[in-house]
Amino acid sequence: MPTTERVTITDIAKEAGVSVPTVSRVLNGRADVAAGTRAKVEGLLNHHGYRRRGSRRVERANLIDLVFNDLDSPWAVEIIRGVEEVAHSSGMGTVVSAIHRQSTAAQQWMQNLQARASDGVILVTSGLEPKLQAELRRLQVPTVVIDPAGVPGLAVPTVGATNWAGGLSATEHLISLGHRRIGLIAGPSRLLCSRARQDGYRAALDAAGLSADGLSADGLIYEGDFYHESGFAGAGQLLDSADPPTAFFASSDQMALGVYEAVRRRGLRVPDDISVVGFDDLPESTWASPPLTTVRQPLTQMGMVAARTILRLLQGDQLESPKVELATELIVRESTAPLSDR
Amino acid sequence: MPTTERVTITDIAKEAGVSVPTVSRVLNGRADVAAGTRAKVEGLLNHHGYRRRGSRRVERANLIDLVFNDLDSPWAVEIIRGVEEVAHSSGMGTVVSAIHRQSTAAQQWMQNLQARASDGVILVTSGLEPKLQAELRRLQVPTVVIDPAGVPGLAVPTVGATNWAGGLSATEHLISLGHRRIGLIAGPSRLLCSRARQDGYRAALDAAGLSADGLSADGLIYEGDFYHESGFAGAGQLLDSADPPTAFFASSDQMALGVYEAVRRRGLRVPDDISVVGFDDLPESTWASPPLTTVRQPLTQMGMVAARTILRLLQGDQLESPKVELATELIVRESTAPLSDR
Repeated sequence: MPTTERVTITDIAKEAGVSVPTVSRVLNGRADVAAGTRAKVEGLLNHHGYRRRGSRRVERANLIDLVFNDLDSPWAVEIIRGVEEVAHSSGMGTVVSAIHRQSTAAQQWMQNLQARASDGVILVTSGLEPKLQAELRRLQVPTVVIDPAGVPGLAVPTVGATNWAGGLSATEHLISLGHRRIGLIAGPSRLLCSRARQDGYRAALDAAGLSADGLSADGLIYEGDFYHESGFAGAGQLLDSADPPTAFFASSDQMALGVYEAVRRRGLRVPDDISVVGFDDLPESTWASPPLTTVRQPLTQMGMVAARTILRLLQGDQLESPKVELATELIVRESTAPLSDR
Repeated sequence: MPTTERVTITDIAKEAGVSVPTVSRVLNGRADVAAGTRAKVEGLLNHHGYRRRGSRRVERANLIDLVFNDLDSPWAVEIIRGVEEVAHSSGMGTVVSAIHRQSTAAQQWMQNLQARASDGVILVTSGLEPKLQAELRRLQVPTVVIDPAGVPGLAVPTVGATNWAGGLSATEHLISLGHRRIGLIAGPSRLLCSRARQDGYRAALDAAGLSADGLSADGLIYEGDFYHESGFAGAGQLLDSADPPTAFFASSDQMALGVYEAVRRRGLRVPDDISVVGFDDLPESTWASPPLTTVRQPLTQMGMVAARTILRLLQGDQLESPKVELATELIVRESTAPLSDR
């Protein structure tokens, strides 16, 4: 039976024989709590009918903060759309900010946040400083990271995508069309998402027996930065090599469109001469000429899941898993074709 | 000398011999006030040192609302970036919403707004219902419309772009390259911005003596809807006609990319066979293959001006002009070339 008197975190910690921060970690759905401890604390929370920060619910700001490093990519609007849809239908506004990878901008944002309160923060960033992360914890604002970059060890719930499986399916598709020399325009290697896509690419080559000596992928990989120019430069370099690839897998749609331009500049055609697969499935991929075959990353759905996670944390729900990866999917359009006999 | 006692709108109205709503209209920078009346009221406001809704300044929400019909276009993020930059540096958050052209969604948004307060509203929409417009006035929330569509008669400050001049410069550019049959993929004719771009196109043809009978533009115009598919369909129809154009001006970048695809499907090349000019200068236009010559609409700057206008209205500033149009600019890239001898 739930007690009628309101129980505090301190009461729960005392009864469970753990520290107050540990109870707090359980409440926040964080991963860094031993399973046994979590079960014990949850049992007590349920038993006493603990309502998480009940006073806060009265003074709801009705706002979810959505923070980007930069608002410089069309994929930002895909994520905004998902967060906004869930927030809007729950009567909440979505506050969009950009912190420009500058600590001054991030601090300004934190000051703004403190001045007006927020019910939850969704970070779409790999680079929030530890100091600001600590400040968010201190403010007890539920935080979720939409994590296309796959930063390891984040002590908050994250929503990502199955990058490895995406890299695998893109490469398998090209192999199934008969391509044997498949160039990779990779994302920055410091980001886990790039690494996962690249590992998927290598796994597909391995499975097809294409990783033997002499067919090693090492001469076929160019590290880009997700932006158009690096796709253009990388494809140009590989196309001008002694044994150029007949197909490319680019780790972002923007880089894939850069590959298109490198191909066009050499008087070649997509897909007649060179096949191209991208990654993201932004609206731009359907507007490309020819329409781009790409790996769909469900950015809008990632935004929706992140917003729903904030709403659940506000209700004091326990998350089944603090780390979620949504499935990627290969979308075949017209930029890939069977290897022609040449 | 300003009076020390605080003067009210009623005092000003009485002294000016006008109604209270008229004073309110002047304070809100609205256009529907006779020049003489405006001058008189402003003189009295200055004389008495009227501070607009001084009490409001204390209870600032520190939020600017930015409302789109749909978050379905990459140009949304261009506008968000401009608003966010100005708001952020003024310590304010930017609340982004989409109302999906549905009155239920718009009403939900209004309820959300009432529940949490807002210091100002920027509408990027041509379709806010009169009822909601009236409600915004009742709440005395400063409102600015970013108005790429050019809705006439809006009784609030607007920020637009010089659409007519843009249509003119795009068409003049194609004429200067020797093109005589220039197809227009127009936007929806119910929107003033489409009409202005089309009038600019016609004016350029007229000036070059290309509007005589037999060279009338009427067989060269297709009305699209700004989306990719309509550019593809329209260009296809004109290219398949008995006397096809050698160049296209498309009233949006998305439609211009649709023209690219129609050209490619017919085994032709941009710009070798067909020149194309777009309108907007979204990031996509530099990623196109070849990079798209287009008319730059300064969306980010329009967002910045709209946000600054809100800040000025909050300070009680008088706007020099409630209607502002920012300059468009032709950006020449690689999708246009001299008419070849054929």
